[in-house]
Amino acid sequence: MDRERAVAVIGAGNCGQSEAEMARELGRLLALRGYTLVSGGMGGVMRAANEGARAAGGRSIGILPGHDRRESAEPNDIRIATGLGHMRNYLVVLNADVIVAIHGGWGTLSEVALAKKIGKSVIAIGKWSCIEGVISATDSAEALDWVEQMLGKEE
Amino acid sequence: MDRERAVAVIGAGNCGQSEAEMARELGRLLALRGYTLVSGGMGGVMRAANEGARAAGGRSIGILPGHDRRESAEPNDIRIATGLGHMRNYLVVLNADVIVAIHGGWGTLSEVALAKKIGKSVIAIGKWSCIEGVISATDSAEALDWVEQMLGKEE
Amino acid sequence: MDRERAVAVIGAGNCGQSEAEMARELGRLLALRGYTLVSGGMGGVMRAANEGARAAGGRSIGILPGHDRRESAEPNDIRIATGLGHMRNYLVVLNADVIVAIHGGWGTLSEVALAKKIGKSVIAIGKWSCIEGVISATDSAEALDWVEQMLGKEE
Amino acid sequence: MDRERAVAVIGAGNCGQSEAEMARELGRLLALRGYTLVSGGMGGVMRAANEGARAAGGRSIGILPGHDRRESAEPNDIRIATGLGHMRNYLVVLNADVIVAIHGGWGTLSEVALAKKIGKSVIAIGKWSCIEGVISATDSAEALDWVEQMLGKEE
Repeated sequence: MDRERAVAVIGAGNCGQSEAEMARELGRLLALRGYTLVSGGMGGVMRAANEGARAAGGRSIGILPGHDRRESAEPNDIRIATGLGHMRNYLVVLNADVIVAIHGGWGTLSEVALAKKIGKSVIAIGKWSCIEGVISATDSAEALDWVEQMLGKEE
Repeated sequence: MDRERAVAVIGAGNCGQSEAEMARELGRLLALRGYTLVSGGMGGVMRAANEGARAAGGRSIGILPGHDRRESAEPNDIRIATGLGHMRNYLVVLNADVIVAIHGGWGTLSEVALAKKIGKSVIAIGKWSCIEGVISATDSAEALDWVEQMLGKEE
Repeated sequence: MDRERAVAVIGAGNCGQSEAEMARELGRLLALRGYTLVSGGMGGVMRAANEGARAAGGRSIGILPGHDRRESAEPNDIRIATGLGHMRNYLVVLNADVIVAIHGGWGTLSEVALAKKIGKSVIAIGKWSCIEGVISATDSAEALDWVEQMLGKEE
Repeated sequence: MDRERAVAVIGAGNCGQSEAEMARELGRLLALRGYTLVSGGMGGVMRAANEGARAAGGRSIGILPGHDRRESAEPNDIRIATGLGHMRNYLVVLNADVIVAIHGGWGTLSEVALAKKIGKSVIAIGKWSCIEGVISATDSAEALDWVEQMLGKEE
């Protein structure tokens, strides 16, 4: 288990219950393997992943778009305010070794694209999984398998 | 003709000849209508669009990823250095009223996504034209038609 | 006369009449020598410098902190929105060859410091002129002399 | 003791032994009071403050200018890569409640100015302590007293 390895979970700030459950489960699984969770620190998928990670005793970092680090929807372990607005999306993927997208909209797509641009592996459940070059997964357990496989490759 | 209206032409910094020709033609057409051309100020599609615009007497702005405004592949009329790396992609679309993508890779996709995120119309030729919410065009002339239609809507 | 040479005029967004007059005069002098004026594109010293430059037929670029390039206090020739807030201060000095500060507060001081950090010459009238490493000038004419001397050195 | 309170220690990335000792001692004192240490995550004053904080069991966050979070001079507890170069200076002060400068050059001055611009208290030892509006301290113990006084005011 290596606390230095970080995985970003990205997705909509406003999401349905099934997406939130998937994010919570993924957050939990990542924490149990000792990965640090990185997210955009807002609601929806981000909040759910954070809740899952923290409930399992994991560390989570929220990289916020705004100017107030106390403004996070759900207390992350660590919160970093950036004041960068949508540009903070780049910082989310820059600070992760692998990225998992759970559905999501345009903001999520920008993160997928920026992550690929800088050579990171991206695993997607749903919405953006059909883009060539993105690894498709159907649920949190499969996403975790891919995360471990991709991290193993890096070593 | 309104010099205040700006159109971004985005695409790969390294592109084939047919893409470059399309970009050059689009740059020319935009200049003839009086639009300011905005681009990322590097090579490939950006350079070709810039060449087309300038040959037709248009104004072009290059928003560069690096720290040196004199580093542009092809002298834009105006060059702005940002030092923001890939985050400068946001500034490219932020400073345009409509965006046209000519093929392109992950960087271009990040610009498409960021543009849509902030509510701008995106027209794409090729590669990213199949994404739901992006307007598909087959060539520069059709792209220009869409640009004018989208700008007309805004008024 | 070299249009490629750019000089930033920095100072408070809210300033007294004597400061504004100095900025207007400096903008005028810079335009007459063919320099592009760079500023933060907001009110006060920035607006006055811009007015002076434009009245004399010069080119001016406003690099704005906000997300809307049409939000400039006074129409610059070219306006670039950044969405970077105070971080846009770095872009103001990055895009100039020499910087002139006319009084100003903390924002201006951050620009002075960032400019010096990246090795640019800074000339200051008033407030920040006593900082070691900053060139002190008493009025616009003397500031212009220093600008030309510093630009001459670079060649 | 409140782990949520964060104090930035800023200063040169290359510093003499007496500055490093002051920074180490300040890092230690801040950690003992339960404050999170925020720094720019590089060498000199930043590294020394970090060492002091970690030796005393405190939490430290390094906000790096580069693109690789593993590039930190001295392992901070948490490292955030930004790719923002000198613009990351803004993030350092944005993520602290109070800022302490230990000498330092232009980069440090830009942080002092940006911190004041966004309404934060700045305490300076040496070099920048004479600037009006900055609180002057002579050593780490006095700086800590000021930190606590300023944080008390906020409540």
